[in-house]
Amino acid sequence: MTQLTSADLDHPALSRIPPWVQEKLSPKAVDLIKRVHYWVETECIPAEPIVKAQLAKNGRWKTPTLIHELRTKAKKEGLFNLFLPKSFGKLSPGLTNLEYSCCAEIMGRCYWAAQTMNCHAPETGNIELLAKYCNEEQKQKWLMPLLNGESSSAYSMTEPDRASSDATQINCRITRDPNDPETLIINGRKLYGNAMWNDDLQVYILMACSDPDNPNQWKRHSTVIVPKNTPGFRMVRNLTIMGYDHAPEGHGEYIYENARIPAANIILGEGRAFEIAQGRLGPGRIHHCMRLIGQTERAYELALIRATDPNKKPRGKFIGEFDSNIERLASMRLKLDSLRLVVLNAAYTMDVHGNKAGRYAIAQSKILVPKTAADIIDECMQMYGGQGLTQHTALPEMWTYARFVRIADGPDAAHRHQVGRDQLKTAGGFRDRHEEYQRRYKELCGKWDVEYETF
Amino acid sequence: MTQLTSADLDHPALSRIPPWVQEKLSPKAVDLIKRVHYWVETECIPAEPIVKAQLAKNGRWKTPTLIHELRTKAKKEGLFNLFLPKSFGKLSPGLTNLEYSCCAEIMGRCYWAAQTMNCHAPETGNIELLAKYCNEEQKQKWLMPLLNGESSSAYSMTEPDRASSDATQINCRITRDPNDPETLIINGRKLYGNAMWNDDLQVYILMACSDPDNPNQWKRHSTVIVPKNTPGFRMVRNLTIMGYDHAPEGHGEYIYENARIPAANIILGEGRAFEIAQGRLGPGRIHHCMRLIGQTERAYELALIRATDPNKKPRGKFIGEFDSNIERLASMRLKLDSLRLVVLNAAYTMDVHGNKAGRYAIAQSKILVPKTAADIIDECMQMYGGQGLTQHTALPEMWTYARFVRIADGPDAAHRHQVGRDQLKTAGGFRDRHEEYQRRYKELCGKWDVEYETF
Amino acid sequence: MTQLTSADLDHPALSRIPPWVQEKLSPKAVDLIKRVHYWVETECIPAEPIVKAQLAKNGRWKTPTLIHELRTKAKKEGLFNLFLPKSFGKLSPGLTNLEYSCCAEIMGRCYWAAQTMNCHAPETGNIELLAKYCNEEQKQKWLMPLLNGESSSAYSMTEPDRASSDATQINCRITRDPNDPETLIINGRKLYGNAMWNDDLQVYILMACSDPDNPNQWKRHSTVIVPKNTPGFRMVRNLTIMGYDHAPEGHGEYIYENARIPAANIILGEGRAFEIAQGRLGPGRIHHCMRLIGQTERAYELALIRATDPNKKPRGKFIGEFDSNIERLASMRLKLDSLRLVVLNAAYTMDVHGNKAGRYAIAQSKILVPKTAADIIDECMQMYGGQGLTQHTALPEMWTYARFVRIADGPDAAHRHQVGRDQLKTAGGFRDRHEEYQRRYKELCGKWDVEYETF
Amino acid sequence: MTQLTSADLDHPALSRIPPWVQEKLSPKAVDLIKRVHYWVETECIPAEPIVKAQLAKNGRWKTPTLIHELRTKAKKEGLFNLFLPKSFGKLSPGLTNLEYSCCAEIMGRCYWAAQTMNCHAPETGNIELLAKYCNEEQKQKWLMPLLNGESSSAYSMTEPDRASSDATQINCRITRDPNDPETLIINGRKLYGNAMWNDDLQVYILMACSDPDNPNQWKRHSTVIVPKNTPGFRMVRNLTIMGYDHAPEGHGEYIYENARIPAANIILGEGRAFEIAQGRLGPGRIHHCMRLIGQTERAYELALIRATDPNKKPRGKFIGEFDSNIERLASMRLKLDSLRLVVLNAAYTMDVHGNKAGRYAIAQSKILVPKTAADIIDECMQMYGGQGLTQHTALPEMWTYARFVRIADGPDAAHRHQVGRDQLKTAGGFRDRHEEYQRRYKELCGKWDVEYETF
Repeated sequence: MTQLTSADLDHPALSRIPPWVQEKLSPKAVDLIKRVHYWVETECIPAEPIVKAQLAKNGRWKTPTLIHELRTKAKKEGLFNLFLPKSFGKLSPGLTNLEYSCCAEIMGRCYWAAQTMNCHAPETGNIELLAKYCNEEQKQKWLMPLLNGESSSAYSMTEPDRASSDATQINCRITRDPNDPETLIINGRKLYGNAMWNDDLQVYILMACSDPDNPNQWKRHSTVIVPKNTPGFRMVRNLTIMGYDHAPEGHGEYIYENARIPAANIILGEGRAFEIAQGRLGPGRIHHCMRLIGQTERAYELALIRATDPNKKPRGKFIGEFDSNIERLASMRLKLDSLRLVVLNAAYTMDVHGNKAGRYAIAQSKILVPKTAADIIDECMQMYGGQGLTQHTALPEMWTYARFVRIADGPDAAHRHQVGRDQLKTAGGFRDRHEEYQRRYKELCGKWDVEYETF
Repeated sequence: MTQLTSADLDHPALSRIPPWVQEKLSPKAVDLIKRVHYWVETECIPAEPIVKAQLAKNGRWKTPTLIHELRTKAKKEGLFNLFLPKSFGKLSPGLTNLEYSCCAEIMGRCYWAAQTMNCHAPETGNIELLAKYCNEEQKQKWLMPLLNGESSSAYSMTEPDRASSDATQINCRITRDPNDPETLIINGRKLYGNAMWNDDLQVYILMACSDPDNPNQWKRHSTVIVPKNTPGFRMVRNLTIMGYDHAPEGHGEYIYENARIPAANIILGEGRAFEIAQGRLGPGRIHHCMRLIGQTERAYELALIRATDPNKKPRGKFIGEFDSNIERLASMRLKLDSLRLVVLNAAYTMDVHGNKAGRYAIAQSKILVPKTAADIIDECMQMYGGQGLTQHTALPEMWTYARFVRIADGPDAAHRHQVGRDQLKTAGGFRDRHEEYQRRYKELCGKWDVEYETF
Repeated sequence: MTQLTSADLDHPALSRIPPWVQEKLSPKAVDLIKRVHYWVETECIPAEPIVKAQLAKNGRWKTPTLIHELRTKAKKEGLFNLFLPKSFGKLSPGLTNLEYSCCAEIMGRCYWAAQTMNCHAPETGNIELLAKYCNEEQKQKWLMPLLNGESSSAYSMTEPDRASSDATQINCRITRDPNDPETLIINGRKLYGNAMWNDDLQVYILMACSDPDNPNQWKRHSTVIVPKNTPGFRMVRNLTIMGYDHAPEGHGEYIYENARIPAANIILGEGRAFEIAQGRLGPGRIHHCMRLIGQTERAYELALIRATDPNKKPRGKFIGEFDSNIERLASMRLKLDSLRLVVLNAAYTMDVHGNKAGRYAIAQSKILVPKTAADIIDECMQMYGGQGLTQHTALPEMWTYARFVRIADGPDAAHRHQVGRDQLKTAGGFRDRHEEYQRRYKELCGKWDVEYETF
Repeated sequence: MTQLTSADLDHPALSRIPPWVQEKLSPKAVDLIKRVHYWVETECIPAEPIVKAQLAKNGRWKTPTLIHELRTKAKKEGLFNLFLPKSFGKLSPGLTNLEYSCCAEIMGRCYWAAQTMNCHAPETGNIELLAKYCNEEQKQKWLMPLLNGESSSAYSMTEPDRASSDATQINCRITRDPNDPETLIINGRKLYGNAMWNDDLQVYILMACSDPDNPNQWKRHSTVIVPKNTPGFRMVRNLTIMGYDHAPEGHGEYIYENARIPAANIILGEGRAFEIAQGRLGPGRIHHCMRLIGQTERAYELALIRATDPNKKPRGKFIGEFDSNIERLASMRLKLDSLRLVVLNAAYTMDVHGNKAGRYAIAQSKILVPKTAADIIDECMQMYGGQGLTQHTALPEMWTYARFVRIADGPDAAHRHQVGRDQLKTAGGFRDRHEEYQRRYKELCGKWDVEYETF
């Protein structure tokens, strides 16, 4: 069934893909996966210190020239916007979720590789959102520059003084100017949207409260587009993640003080923010998870390299000759491969049954992958001794990214809560079946002349 | 692609099967899965207390009449020997490993359900072994009764005073009678083969040392067939597992004292025991793992039932309303579904690439499933409070079975060791790639005018 | 400060005791600890197979003759009732909780050693209860035989259809006979009190509902003494724990059908069951935990013995030469010694500040010890390979006891809940202190000319 | 026995100290503990943002003025050099290890509080080393400025291309100038000593190889004092820890290129580095662990504050009302209090039996505390949602410090290895005792007329 040659099966970009997925890859997907792999291995990973050097030299909030150049080149080579689903027509390369997931894993090997292919968060989620819910005029104005890679966007939802796992509490206020009803006035504070300090960033997609007194709590909020240069809208500070500024994109803390935007910037319609929020996030979570797996593979390779480092032989043995380390390496490999199966299954479930039916499998990925990935990377750091914590390896940045993904889109506990409640809804069926067992047992007692006994 | 109707997708025997597997099931497999499900739910689970009653009444080492009856019925209904691979021709139902795995999960829901379908361990492994390595005469004599379900067999390898993870140390001795070279004399002690005390058991497949001085340590051992009633061969005691006697099959401790068998009972040839051992175990491990998943699903259902038990409402709330329990139920579900993906992937890898290529995926299943299954069942017991440890539920037996499977076929550590050593063999490739990154980085330093820096 | 000689410090009964405890041991305690050690090592552990043989021969529910003999001998030698606190006057050996804890650890090395010294559960808790709450007449009748070791007792609280972590739901009913108000009539079902089938057992201490309509839910229940031979009171079955019958004491399932007892059997007064329940359990939990530590030490010794077993050398190395096992042995040792510190601290806290003040430290022991002990024993079983699960070692019985103690007196979760709620009550104080930090920070901003910044 | 009043027992600096330690505190220690507490709570914690502001304003590698001022003040108030053992005579406050541990926990609440009291690493270890092994002249020149707090020092041992857990491999070379034997020439690379960029730092204590061909591998290395301004000695870069520069002390990467120092700078004598290394580290590890406990207590307080934050009420409930969080808070509390018992026991063991006898208890602390502390802090971050990873709380810095301490002084695995090997040495004794059980069992078989049975 599979199109893969035996050379393909040994290709480092394809060999870890489980057989059931290998056989589903179209020739185009196989070609793209190999090209993404070549791109990441040749243009991205070796250039990581160059990017650091350019950030150090040209300013931390300026996208390095190298990345701009790679984006141009990727576009030319057809490696841009690979994530776009078929519904985008000609713009889309036509990959299934399953096929794109294989690309995303490879992209994850370098922190900013996805960005060179315009496949990074939150861009991908924002593009899907704008494409799905904007009118034509809005699409021309806001979506096209993102698709073309001419500018970038941020998503703004979380607030400092609200429980972020309960979006109905969002408090940032949108009011209409009483003197000019076609102008909206925004007031409030927000956390985490990408940094305004980067010139590429042009637009914020903001979720805020426009009708606090609506009796239906799901209709109180609107989603609007806020251009970066809106007066009254400013970034207070960069929010660091475990001390990393994540420049040049980074995460900002924002204040809106009577920021004014045209009412034409409302997406889909007033009070429809929750409709929009529903449609977001599904595939994005899978992308995050696959990239994390790719990154963790790279961490694992570093551990293998350390385990066989001829300079590191305590008591005359390679680190990898100590069987405690052999067992650790095995445990990491087993867990990591299990995670891949989980995420690929989620991707395929979405392909076959749609995003909604994939909800559980997505949650499964979201809950299991970041925590386990962080644990594996932590173990890799430990194998490097003190150096594992320093900039001598990329491991600390990898760990931090995994820790970040774990909390992004809500804490594990919130997701587990949802899964658990869904499970409890199935309890009734099992209870019925249990009673049926009892009924049948009683029947069999008669047949076999055994006393019916209950506990 | 899938043949499943939407009614099929909701069928309890099919709904947990991931989409990529569902679509691979032949109509025959779908039908068998449903029939196995009906069989287990109707004939087996409700009959569990009957089996206990018959053991109590008729003697612990006599196979209960109910099970004999069900075996006869299963044979008539075409539910016998489902595990037999296609190579068995007409005797085989022709299921792939993947398809049979779906059956095995369901069988696992009841401890002895597989036995009613002649699909239980060690029978399945023994049948495959005899079919693969016996000559025609041996097959007629020893294999056919097993295939027909007329008698059962045991496998005997482990010894009390040897490291069981190193089979080259097996010490039980086979010598030829100097006066009658066509007679073999066996002396030694063995652990764990099924109990001789059960009348159904007729034959032991024994691995022992026939040529201790052979310079090639892989040619020192032979595999022979020992009929139960061989004089000088006796069972010292039943070996309990966590206190359970696992009657009426159970596990024995054996002594061979000048036990004599014909040389015609040697399988494949003298000194070829390791060739035979190689060919065993692969699919059997997967069967064990799938059955364990099925059993754990049932434990999980019991937890859901407890969580919604109207008699158990501490401080006025259902146990399932406490969000710590909601999270626990979610965690168990997530892990259990991940395990299924792991084992099904192993089964499919064997289908596509053969048992040998599936070695890693089998090890992955073997290491991850029993430990996690035992942990999940332990958590289910905990949700039942004190009752969870008593015979009021089947949970203690389930936990014990999971714990047993964890150690059967060798401790986790031995398997991890093998996986880890295989991983270390790949380190060289990554080291090379790393050097290639450095070379390319140096090149890019030139292009971008950045100082080349190493750590 | 310490009285211990350097020979004492090397004594196996004393060497694991931390220095701060060693120095607090009175000469009498040191002497008793050594004698208990000698007793357990010489009279109990080597006799374990004898006890099994006597149970097999004389019937599982008859206390073996050997144990009766040892009880008589222990009484003669002053090793009886060691747990009795000083308040018992001459009957008590005068050990502090701390000192007795050191004895209890040693007793725990053999499952039934405590019983030979009349220091076993539930006897110790029952004796304390009766001593504290009975009137003189009751004491003569019910307490003295227990203190003298002439008979034994059970405690009966849990019910099958009630949440056992919420005692206010106890449903077994006590009513007064309308025709004879000095007679109580009992109806209901109970779980877990020791087995009536053992002749030594004479009396049940029962908690039941006597006044269901009392507006104060803490006054609805009474504690009464039920003689074993009360008509209408019967044991339905032995409740097994993970398959073990725990004979000859065991755990029963009981039915009360119009069982009649004199009203004089009410302890302390009608409706005062919760007052009594409050006073129970504290020291008992500590005893359980220390015995569990002693048992786990013995499991650990077995692991060390296996690790150096010359018959078990996979690939030519002792199991203990594999550094993964070296690390495992270290981890177990570290955890086990930490547990001892936790329990000894709880014991001493009770000595100094009383049982109530020790509540948190007791909970800490109760939550941490059984779970960790079970995990350590499980690891020891794993080091034994398959044999670790069979009767070839005592490990399966040890694991089962640890698992049982974990659930006895309520599931971990209930105890954690209590601790967590107590912790949350302290949050206000920390919130205040945090505000004080802010106030002071503002002040320092002035002094150092730094801008005051808040998040 | 204890001197503490009931007011003392409620004092936040004393209330978490277990009773057995409380009673051992001298009045002087009680007074110092309270004063250290006041100091940290009033002068340090509220000043944390001031220190950050001064670093931002005055340069990251300049010790902030506020800290210099506090050091002067602490010295005046008798809060300087509290760690100094009694052997330092008048310079020492005379605290036992146990008493000082209670101070260290409090110091740990603020990252740099210990520094204001000259009780920080590596200063304390260096001071002890110089005091113990220097001659008088060296002491005057190098030790006194450290004791007086006039300058600071670094310790330099680890190398980039050697296994740091095996110090015999240290490769940095010391040779004598053939033309001037009183001058030593140093060549090599080192990692992790505090940053040369800070003006306060004046001196490096260096371990290097002076006699590579000595047949005794323990005599090949020497410890020497290297003044910072030595030509040929330079810092290549700051080594970040999980991205943090840990300025203004930080960690450096160093190169020695023909750096020349007088031979008079050799400590103790040529080839005696291992003697010196032996004497280091013991108490220092305990200090690290206690500070980490103090820091983790503060993380825990933050979690409690979040759990009761009126702005954070998902679905209308405080975070602390979800019982999964209640259980989490309980688990953290239980573990944290257990760690304190472990470290205090180690401190007291050193007080009573000396550092060498305390080796095991120190290792127990070193292995258990940092890992568990990091896990607890991680859980606290998780309770804060996204904010938990940002600079909005000190949690990320705390986690990083815990992770750093885990690897400092060698990875866990190396310590576990040592503990495990020591345990294995005790196996023989247990094996003997086991045989004694068998002998006695056989004897009892005779007495009780039971068949002797072995497995």
